[in-house]
Amino acid sequence: MSHFPELISFIRNEINYSIKKLPIPDKPTYLYEPIKYALKGKGKRLRPILTHLVGRTYNTDPNSLMSISLAIELLHNFTLIHDDIMDKDTIRHSQKTIHYKWDTSTAILAGDGIYTVAQLVLNSIDRYNKEISKCFNEVTLDICEGQAMDKEFENLDIVTEDLYLEMIKKKTGSLIAAAAMLPSIYAKDEIDNIELFRTFGEYLGKGFQIHDDLLEITSDSKTMGKSLDSDIFEGKQTIMVIKAKQYFKESWESIVSNSKKSDLKKNIYVFLNEKKIIEETKHIAESYFKKSRKILKELNHINSDELFMFVDLLENRSF
Amino acid sequence: MSHFPELISFIRNEINYSIKKLPIPDKPTYLYEPIKYALKGKGKRLRPILTHLVGRTYNTDPNSLMSISLAIELLHNFTLIHDDIMDKDTIRHSQKTIHYKWDTSTAILAGDGIYTVAQLVLNSIDRYNKEISKCFNEVTLDICEGQAMDKEFENLDIVTEDLYLEMIKKKTGSLIAAAAMLPSIYAKDEIDNIELFRTFGEYLGKGFQIHDDLLEITSDSKTMGKSLDSDIFEGKQTIMVIKAKQYFKESWESIVSNSKKSDLKKNIYVFLNEKKIIEETKHIAESYFKKSRKILKELNHINSDELFMFVDLLENRSF
Repeated sequence: MSHFPELISFIRNEINYSIKKLPIPDKPTYLYEPIKYALKGKGKRLRPILTHLVGRTYNTDPNSLMSISLAIELLHNFTLIHDDIMDKDTIRHSQKTIHYKWDTSTAILAGDGIYTVAQLVLNSIDRYNKEISKCFNEVTLDICEGQAMDKEFENLDIVTEDLYLEMIKKKTGSLIAAAAMLPSIYAKDEIDNIELFRTFGEYLGKGFQIHDDLLEITSDSKTMGKSLDSDIFEGKQTIMVIKAKQYFKESWESIVSNSKKSDLKKNIYVFLNEKKIIEETKHIAESYFKKSRKILKELNHINSDELFMFVDLLENRSF
Repeated sequence: MSHFPELISFIRNEINYSIKKLPIPDKPTYLYEPIKYALKGKGKRLRPILTHLVGRTYNTDPNSLMSISLAIELLHNFTLIHDDIMDKDTIRHSQKTIHYKWDTSTAILAGDGIYTVAQLVLNSIDRYNKEISKCFNEVTLDICEGQAMDKEFENLDIVTEDLYLEMIKKKTGSLIAAAAMLPSIYAKDEIDNIELFRTFGEYLGKGFQIHDDLLEITSDSKTMGKSLDSDIFEGKQTIMVIKAKQYFKESWESIVSNSKKSDLKKNIYVFLNEKKIIEETKHIAESYFKKSRKILKELNHINSDELFMFVDLLENRSF
């Protein structure tokens, strides 16, 4: 049990090593230089780590497990590269985003390329089949739908909590679900377990995203490795923004429009804290972590000790 | 033989009908409205028609053949949507491009979504397997590489004809090759035939692209259904531009920089015609159509009559 942090470090190092060894050509530079650059970023590799932890419970062939986990990480990077263009984010994984360092065209193509490499890496596993490809691509479409909802929310004054939760289930939950489901599909486990892993991942993803929204308010950009303030200016909805607008519309709007840019984050934090919105939001995140643990208990014939520890890891993460 | 045009119309109508019947949801509107809009455009459906013609030689199951051909058409549309952003094109298939009608973010996501739908449509066939997925995704990466080379060329003064031919082989030839190869892979035909279909498609694609470059100079935007002049202003290299720069650098540059925007296309046409560059380029296109026919003759146990007629169709097309 006490060796869990070492296990996670070990898996992360193995993943980073395998990413470095991906046979990505040098030319054309326009396509591959930004792809290599993106993969050098300091991603936390949480999704492929989850894939490894689930795969370990099935004693999965290590090469195939690594390929599945890399496909998940590459898919994740594809969505980040394109989302960063849409959200005008300038920092990601502690380095400049591709569209900011190069330009929009370069970032569009790098995203397309990295997603295609993801498909090819997935294709390289033994026992590649229809179900594996179906899960992978359905999840990609879910992520696209989640991103579309997120973009729609930017132009809506009022978004309900239910709609927000539906959005993050698609945008964040579905990929975490796939990270957990794919080794189970690969192992040809019973459908009940596969579906439990889906639900587990969706709950965990919701907890993770809400926790992430909280960290954006309480951490600084350097620790998080991505640009933060941009979200509020682009009109991003989070549980906290939704609650603030719902219960304290006027005073919230006054803070957002009257704060100096340099004070905005601090003022928002003080406001959300005073109004107990941070506390309430923490409870919501907790409830989803709790739900994900409940699902783990329902899994048949699977030793889920490490998965419980993984949930703890996400819940306690501070960056 | 004389019924070939009717056959092509029939297949095109069937393809358009099947595109209309694709189970694309309504919501989120941000994602699916532009996708439906793109698929309503007046595409010529040449690539999926080729897939049908090859599939007919194998008596392929009609549902699977239709799905393979739709996946090819969807993949094609994905690349057009993203290329149009990068090339700032405003008209495609006789209607406004997505990034022009909506915005860049909408077009990025619509492209991502349509490509993912392509993967799912391909996945829906019976006997979906590793080889089919591999071919489909390798071709996508080729197209990305071709587009990257094309973007690199914009910043190069001198591009060799060889490099240009390599670029269009990837950007245009590879998808036409896949349109021909996939039914052959699906039919589990011998590897020789599959590879002959690849070479056939690459030659045909080169002929098609060079012919297309010629049409851009000799047709008007309305007939072509896409914006034309933009290419020269964005510094696009074509065989004709490469030859003009190679043999008549000064007079070419003088025409490009001294023509009024409204006269540019006409002046370029007159110049290229006078210098016999149009004639020479026509010969090059012809040579690739001829090479593609030569490959058809090498196919084993396949009735390629309709494929010869398809080559004629592409060679004689005037829009």
